[in-house]
Amino acid sequence: MKQVLASFQGELGAFSQVAVKQLLGDAGRAVACERFEQAFRALEEGRVQAAVIPVENTLHGSVHENYDHLLRFHLPITGETSVRILHNLIAPQGVSWAKIRRVYSHPVALNQCLDFFAAHPHLERIPFYDTAGSVKMIVEQKLTDAAAIASSVAAEIYGARILKRSIEDDRQNFTRFVLLQRPGTKPLLAQTGDRKTSLVFTTRNVPGALFRSLSAFALRDLSLAKIESRPLRGKPWEYLFYVDVLEDIAAPRMKKALGHLEELADFLKVLGCYPRGK
Amino acid sequence: MKQVLASFQGELGAFSQVAVKQLLGDAGRAVACERFEQAFRALEEGRVQAAVIPVENTLHGSVHENYDHLLRFHLPITGETSVRILHNLIAPQGVSWAKIRRVYSHPVALNQCLDFFAAHPHLERIPFYDTAGSVKMIVEQKLTDAAAIASSVAAEIYGARILKRSIEDDRQNFTRFVLLQRPGTKPLLAQTGDRKTSLVFTTRNVPGALFRSLSAFALRDLSLAKIESRPLRGKPWEYLFYVDVLEDIAAPRMKKALGHLEELADFLKVLGCYPRGK
Repeated sequence: MKQVLASFQGELGAFSQVAVKQLLGDAGRAVACERFEQAFRALEEGRVQAAVIPVENTLHGSVHENYDHLLRFHLPITGETSVRILHNLIAPQGVSWAKIRRVYSHPVALNQCLDFFAAHPHLERIPFYDTAGSVKMIVEQKLTDAAAIASSVAAEIYGARILKRSIEDDRQNFTRFVLLQRPGTKPLLAQTGDRKTSLVFTTRNVPGALFRSLSAFALRDLSLAKIESRPLRGKPWEYLFYVDVLEDIAAPRMKKALGHLEELADFLKVLGCYPRGK
Repeated sequence: MKQVLASFQGELGAFSQVAVKQLLGDAGRAVACERFEQAFRALEEGRVQAAVIPVENTLHGSVHENYDHLLRFHLPITGETSVRILHNLIAPQGVSWAKIRRVYSHPVALNQCLDFFAAHPHLERIPFYDTAGSVKMIVEQKLTDAAAIASSVAAEIYGARILKRSIEDDRQNFTRFVLLQRPGTKPLLAQTGDRKTSLVFTTRNVPGALFRSLSAFALRDLSLAKIESRPLRGKPWEYLFYVDVLEDIAAPRMKKALGHLEELADFLKVLGCYPRGK
């Protein structure tokens, strides 16, 4: 089987690595980058064949930085997947639950396990830069009173032990990732089933401009799965709008909608058309 | 003059303190809180008469956490103001520009001065939890090779010296703050001039739902200054929409628009009606 290198942000064992596996199967080899921008750049410069980037979490909201990168880099979206976020309490081998006094993890993960901390008030929460990175650290430093909150993959990779599974407050915790490739390369995923088109546009700063832009879709019965606004640099209090439309870009009504939107929008860019994730 | 206590997030000298002054003048006394939630809670519990909360920056985008708090707490918006974000390089007294090797600040502030760092590559950037807090720290620890990036107010408060003024990349850098009070209390600001109404609503998850909701405003020539979406907890891939409408809630067309929106929305809450900031 031919390997596919895919850049992602975080340490090995991050939820992004789970997304790499869901998207690319056993062929996918996750390449860790410290920052999101580096994951985009690795793909732009051809050091990897794909990038796997989180865009949205159902509790925490959009990963806004990545919307900015999607605009700036010219790396089309060719697929998507959602990962169920399961937080586990993980300790180095030989460290039992009774000994744990401190728990390390990314602040977002700590905040998603508030019921667990309320039930165990003797545990100190310590913010760390990364979920999987906190497992790596407690194992490397051989801490005897510390645990980390991370994915089960992180426990596996760093040879640590899961003390308690699924300690997150809310089971409806999913993160949506997009698969990016370089322009003109063959899609890595099978192009079958229903499709989605992602766009970004600006409107003229006139009353009703967003409403009129959305009419391009609504009047053609095209559904939006998501809309996100971001500030437009250099034009205070004006915005870019990102939308995901549940239709193939090649479908006649979608072509007409894009033509209509072009009449109304100052700027329009297609970010990708790809098979809808489950 | 009667003092008005206003909670804000950050250390004394934060840009929020500038907003307190812009909103409440010399009567305003800023009460520092470590986290945003604490600033909301201080007002809810009556320990202060107002809270001053950032909701949006023209480069960085919305402060999404505060949109979630605006929904959860019942503390109406009674005013707004925009603060020009001017980043200054600040050092302890007696430390000259030639000695500076390290620069501390909040990661967002460091990222807004990239041209400055590109011109001075020998300077190490060190992320710190707060802009004003980094001035406080370098002064308290009497660092001799370090500077911080923060507001001029921070330099004043901690008795530090501004080495270089206005080192930010982009002059179009503003943060919008809202003034919150407890329900039923007398507005602290004069209720004159044009007004703005802030709302949050959810739509039914059907095609065109957002378009139809916005029609309540567009069909009455009501302008939206801003729309923001946030995830709806417990309903993955559904959203809350926050909108700012440039009209008084008491105006006849606005009353009709709200009645119309109520027909279409599953949930609707008015966050406040207040004089528009400059």
